[in-house]
Amino acid sequence: MSGRRKGPSTTREEILDAAREVFADRGVDGTTREIAQRAGVDPAMIAHYFGSKGGLFDAVTALRIDPADVIAPVLEARPEDAARRLVAQLITVWDAHASVISVMVRSATRNKVVAGQMRAFILERAVRPVVTRFSPDPDPEQIEVRAALVASQVAGLLLTRYVLRWEPLASADPDWVVDHIAPTVQAYLTGPLPSRPSAS
Amino acid sequence: MSGRRKGPSTTREEILDAAREVFADRGVDGTTREIAQRAGVDPAMIAHYFGSKGGLFDAVTALRIDPADVIAPVLEARPEDAARRLVAQLITVWDAHASVISVMVRSATRNKVVAGQMRAFILERAVRPVVTRFSPDPDPEQIEVRAALVASQVAGLLLTRYVLRWEPLASADPDWVVDHIAPTVQAYLTGPLPSRPSAS
Repeated sequence: MSGRRKGPSTTREEILDAAREVFADRGVDGTTREIAQRAGVDPAMIAHYFGSKGGLFDAVTALRIDPADVIAPVLEARPEDAARRLVAQLITVWDAHASVISVMVRSATRNKVVAGQMRAFILERAVRPVVTRFSPDPDPEQIEVRAALVASQVAGLLLTRYVLRWEPLASADPDWVVDHIAPTVQAYLTGPLPSRPSAS
Repeated sequence: MSGRRKGPSTTREEILDAAREVFADRGVDGTTREIAQRAGVDPAMIAHYFGSKGGLFDAVTALRIDPADVIAPVLEARPEDAARRLVAQLITVWDAHASVISVMVRSATRNKVVAGQMRAFILERAVRPVVTRFSPDPDPEQIEVRAALVASQVAGLLLTRYVLRWEPLASADPDWVVDHIAPTVQAYLTGPLPSRPSAS
């Protein structure tokens, strides 16, 4: 820094960087004091820019991405290309925000509010509209089943590629992931379902 | 308790129950003091029975199950039944230990030691031996790819059924889950892989 005072936008970015690291390490239990210390700022600056730890957490996990934008090109795909398009769009967004995604999944496993955000972001606002568009049967129960199955594969990709970082998925390039995962998602989207129709 | 002194095995179980709840709520950040308080025992009893928080955590997450026992019946299956057998065996074990499983996944997302245990338990000691047995091609790279794909679906089931509890997967009965998930796992185990062979 060589004596130059930090400008306001720099401070804000430094707090966000520090928060990303602390939340990644310790989830929502990371304290504003730790974050301020790591950012080298007074804790009052966190209150100034973000109001509270909750506001800071929201800022860190905010993807500033509308799931509707992400799936728009998917909804225009031919049915047989829908899964490739969906997986490609998700991977593009997730790869570009890998650290935020990782913090979100981590926190969602322990915090009901974040779990609700993740459910809304993935299941309700991305997967379900795609399933509704492409399911061969408009029966709502069937749509729920297909959406849960797609979500299970997609959530597994999130967990293993971005959080647990299991190879070869963690380092595989996006096209490779699409080639290998899309056939499963396509089967869940438009393939035949087992004849046992009820979930319980 | 009505004045009767707790016997040693009761105390141990009460500590384990309390630890399971505290770790479920707060992951590995739960303190021995909170656990002792919830169990209604002196913190010294935790040291007495488990040595340390690490020892207590190990006791809580120990499945006392050998993955080799879980997959033994899978290895004897006909190739076309392998995935059904594998998913059925995993669901049986996981349903019987749902709270431990949930604690393990939660903690694995934030703690490298637990993440290593989860990787060993699921990927290395359960999925990989099954893939090695049934992959149509013994090429080690292909086995790694198939194992990662199976693990991605299986990890997604863990996350959505036991941790995030997304319906209808969370409440679906085991046969239903096998019917719906096994075809994917079978394709990853024995089906053709996309022609792009390298992961990067």
